[in-house]
Amino acid sequence: MNLAGCSIIGSRRSLTGGTGFRAYDPTTAQAVEPDFFSATLDEVNEAARLAHEAFVFYSRASGREKAEFLRRIAGNIESAAGEVIQRARLETALPEARLQAETARTCGQLRMFAQVVEEGSWVMARIDRADPNRKPNPKPDIRSMLRPVGPVAVFGASNFPLAFSVAGGDTASALAAGNPVIVKAHPAHPGTSELAGRAIQQAVRDCKLHEGVFSLLFDSGTEAGAALVRHPLVKAVGFTGSRKGGRALMDIAAARPEPIPIFAEMSSTNPVFILPGALREHAGTIAAGLFASFTMGAGQFCTKPGMVFVPEQPEISQFISRLESSVADAADFHLLTGSIRSAYEAGIRNRKEACTVKLVAGKPSSAAGYCADLALFETSAKSFRDDPALSEEIFGPSTLLVRHSGREELLEIARRLEGHLTATIHGTSEDLSEFRDLIAILETKVGRIVFNGFPTGVEVTHAMVHGGPYPATSDGRSTSVGSQAIFRFCRPVCYQGFPNEALPAELQNANPLAIWRMLDGELTKNPL
Amino acid sequence: MNLAGCSIIGSRRSLTGGTGFRAYDPTTAQAVEPDFFSATLDEVNEAARLAHEAFVFYSRASGREKAEFLRRIAGNIESAAGEVIQRARLETALPEARLQAETARTCGQLRMFAQVVEEGSWVMARIDRADPNRKPNPKPDIRSMLRPVGPVAVFGASNFPLAFSVAGGDTASALAAGNPVIVKAHPAHPGTSELAGRAIQQAVRDCKLHEGVFSLLFDSGTEAGAALVRHPLVKAVGFTGSRKGGRALMDIAAARPEPIPIFAEMSSTNPVFILPGALREHAGTIAAGLFASFTMGAGQFCTKPGMVFVPEQPEISQFISRLESSVADAADFHLLTGSIRSAYEAGIRNRKEACTVKLVAGKPSSAAGYCADLALFETSAKSFRDDPALSEEIFGPSTLLVRHSGREELLEIARRLEGHLTATIHGTSEDLSEFRDLIAILETKVGRIVFNGFPTGVEVTHAMVHGGPYPATSDGRSTSVGSQAIFRFCRPVCYQGFPNEALPAELQNANPLAIWRMLDGELTKNPL
Repeated sequence: MNLAGCSIIGSRRSLTGGTGFRAYDPTTAQAVEPDFFSATLDEVNEAARLAHEAFVFYSRASGREKAEFLRRIAGNIESAAGEVIQRARLETALPEARLQAETARTCGQLRMFAQVVEEGSWVMARIDRADPNRKPNPKPDIRSMLRPVGPVAVFGASNFPLAFSVAGGDTASALAAGNPVIVKAHPAHPGTSELAGRAIQQAVRDCKLHEGVFSLLFDSGTEAGAALVRHPLVKAVGFTGSRKGGRALMDIAAARPEPIPIFAEMSSTNPVFILPGALREHAGTIAAGLFASFTMGAGQFCTKPGMVFVPEQPEISQFISRLESSVADAADFHLLTGSIRSAYEAGIRNRKEACTVKLVAGKPSSAAGYCADLALFETSAKSFRDDPALSEEIFGPSTLLVRHSGREELLEIARRLEGHLTATIHGTSEDLSEFRDLIAILETKVGRIVFNGFPTGVEVTHAMVHGGPYPATSDGRSTSVGSQAIFRFCRPVCYQGFPNEALPAELQNANPLAIWRMLDGELTKNPL
Repeated sequence: MNLAGCSIIGSRRSLTGGTGFRAYDPTTAQAVEPDFFSATLDEVNEAARLAHEAFVFYSRASGREKAEFLRRIAGNIESAAGEVIQRARLETALPEARLQAETARTCGQLRMFAQVVEEGSWVMARIDRADPNRKPNPKPDIRSMLRPVGPVAVFGASNFPLAFSVAGGDTASALAAGNPVIVKAHPAHPGTSELAGRAIQQAVRDCKLHEGVFSLLFDSGTEAGAALVRHPLVKAVGFTGSRKGGRALMDIAAARPEPIPIFAEMSSTNPVFILPGALREHAGTIAAGLFASFTMGAGQFCTKPGMVFVPEQPEISQFISRLESSVADAADFHLLTGSIRSAYEAGIRNRKEACTVKLVAGKPSSAAGYCADLALFETSAKSFRDDPALSEEIFGPSTLLVRHSGREELLEIARRLEGHLTATIHGTSEDLSEFRDLIAILETKVGRIVFNGFPTGVEVTHAMVHGGPYPATSDGRSTSVGSQAIFRFCRPVCYQGFPNEALPAELQNANPLAIWRMLDGELTKNPL
């Protein structure tokens, strides 16, 4: 594997080279070759300048041209999959099957957006016809559609080295909408990032696009990323990471002379509500599913269920003992980075030391490297309500059971929840009718409500909403997964009184792209 | 007319009463009765608490119920129209015909949103069906739709005492989406605000809604408004006003522990590009239209054309002399408030004193009160580029002609523009094909491009986009006029694996509301 370790600035590799850093193998905690070099501020500026230049052309690319580009990226990643997965294993210690699935998902996302932009109706074209006879003034012809917003900065996530990194969801949706993308690679998997970045760079070449459509910046720290978000030519930001990091970027974006939209997905504890009937009838199955869900990916998913509300009733002991035996049988876990491990250890230590929390089951890890102890805690509803720290996300293989006395206490807890990505309800149909108001509360707290399932495993579909009120994200009015993510990186533009031939194809009388349009308030594919 | 002068907190009138203030008659600059009282912080808190309480119920009102409510508001305003218009004339000095048209527009907006929510397809329902046989994991059933965001704070605008104030566009779209609204009345027209507020309060009663669905707060200063934007139970903000005021609220919204979306429409100079062919063929007509547009409403529209780019060619003298004679024949103008007048006078004075700007035609006002001198300026393209102050909005009956040497200079100016609400092009079809790249640039700078028309007069339709990149608005990804404004105040929520009967009607198998839905990626009204 021949890694250069340099940022990709349009069609070039950076030659200047800032501070050097390396990836670490989580199984050994040892640095691995080669050196990577942080982007300089000049390189940030150059990437932004190129993206701005490219926007003039790429923003006017047709749906077909963008679809070809997105499919080419997917194809290039598949061609390099062997190498990509090998390097990703080294940098993340994630199992090969998971990385294969993630590669497939990454390419699937790119192809989903290719299909969306090739079909074309996503632009929400609207046409209100003129009425020259209207009194007192004639009514003009007005037509609107979504247009891309401008160069987008995307921050790679530590926990999805492919699907939410260089060629991940944010990149795919931003490119699909017609925006150049500048990725700030996550420093935990720079080699994987370089390989994905090269696949995109090659696709830019293959499709003869302006080189500024894509750049990839390395940085071991936060300077390049902050400079990117501050850059006047950058018009929107996608970020997946910690609450602290996300909020810092939100504050930078809001304090710019020209504030820009930022979509930061930050932290979520994903409450699970096991209702009385479900616990009575399915304690064992739910326990097994819960264990699999909170330990999946070593508990490093943004949708990991981190607090589980269980009613005080006889079946609770069966539920807990099933979890205990799963804990006892568990394999060792490796976390992704040294800093995730430190944060996890601190989080676990705090809970162990809290007198209101009990360690129900734990399993010390015997592995080397960034290994993680498994830890299952429990607390009372009262203690949970009194201690906001118990609501916080602990990134890693741990969860917290909260024992409550029944409906009223549960609703009170639900009302006090902050924003999360998901909430999960396990219930029978009787439970559901008794807890209708719980659903009403949860609708205001999360982006996705899961019934009799588990929140991990986010489908990439048209209806998926992977978002939620702050602090789950910076802005709960959008999703980072699924085809609706394309709406993040565009804005409506309207054309008044334009001659037909000067309009974008989407808005021309004949409807040459045969897309769905709202014509005088009615959806139709008909021409005018 | 019996005005109480008190804030409306749900079903009650405030009795406490903070600082007193009065409206002013712009024709005399004299205060008019009665006293109005600024809301106290306790009243802000109480309005927010009630709105939060109401949200639980109102967010679940059906489209039909919300439509009835919106139509009832329109009906109540129409019933009180005589009184409303009389008071608005006193407080704004706007002509009766304009206030009648604005009342009709206000009621029209409310009824448009009534129709949108009654029809119901606006929620963007999406259904992805389950596939239990998918490998390696079964695919769950996922359904999503837009849901209201929570209590919305709306700030009334000075220049639209009805259509962008208490019962104006932001209130209508927020209520249509299912959100309680707390309006901070503009202190320039408190009586008009009280009458509109009472019409809404009565509609809340008529429809037996929770009283917290609507409150109206008075404030002579900025405290109540700032407290409202800071309030943890307020979830979004709509504002129309100055750049300074809008940016201050943006900063407050972004600095909250839980930042919230804010839609501030702030300032726009609405560039007009008169292309060579158009000037050659239509100099006189364009001059007449431009005069009418920049003096409409005494130049106090956010869409007023404040800079006009004209090529140096022989017809420019005809164009200017036509403008001069319109200026000479003009009637007197009154501005809306003393502070708008001071700002206008300062703006005009600065231009008169600038050695790079020439007063082409002016007309001192002979009226009493908040009268305004008409002022038509011109400058060169070079001076315009060198002095950013010449791009700034001057709210009142004045505009600036910018003489340029041709295509290259014009494109360079266009590239340097900041965000505006609109841009206007006057051109022949030859002009249009020669200046295609001008349109491409303007698409990135404004929300609406007008061809051979004028930007004032914003149609309330489905395709309208009244928005634009910062600093025209806080977030160019939305519109404050037209039916698409409903998307501001909602967020997508998805339901995974839900039993049919537990889903909102919009997402149930039978499609009981007969709305358009995206079913496995295809738009249809079919049931499952």
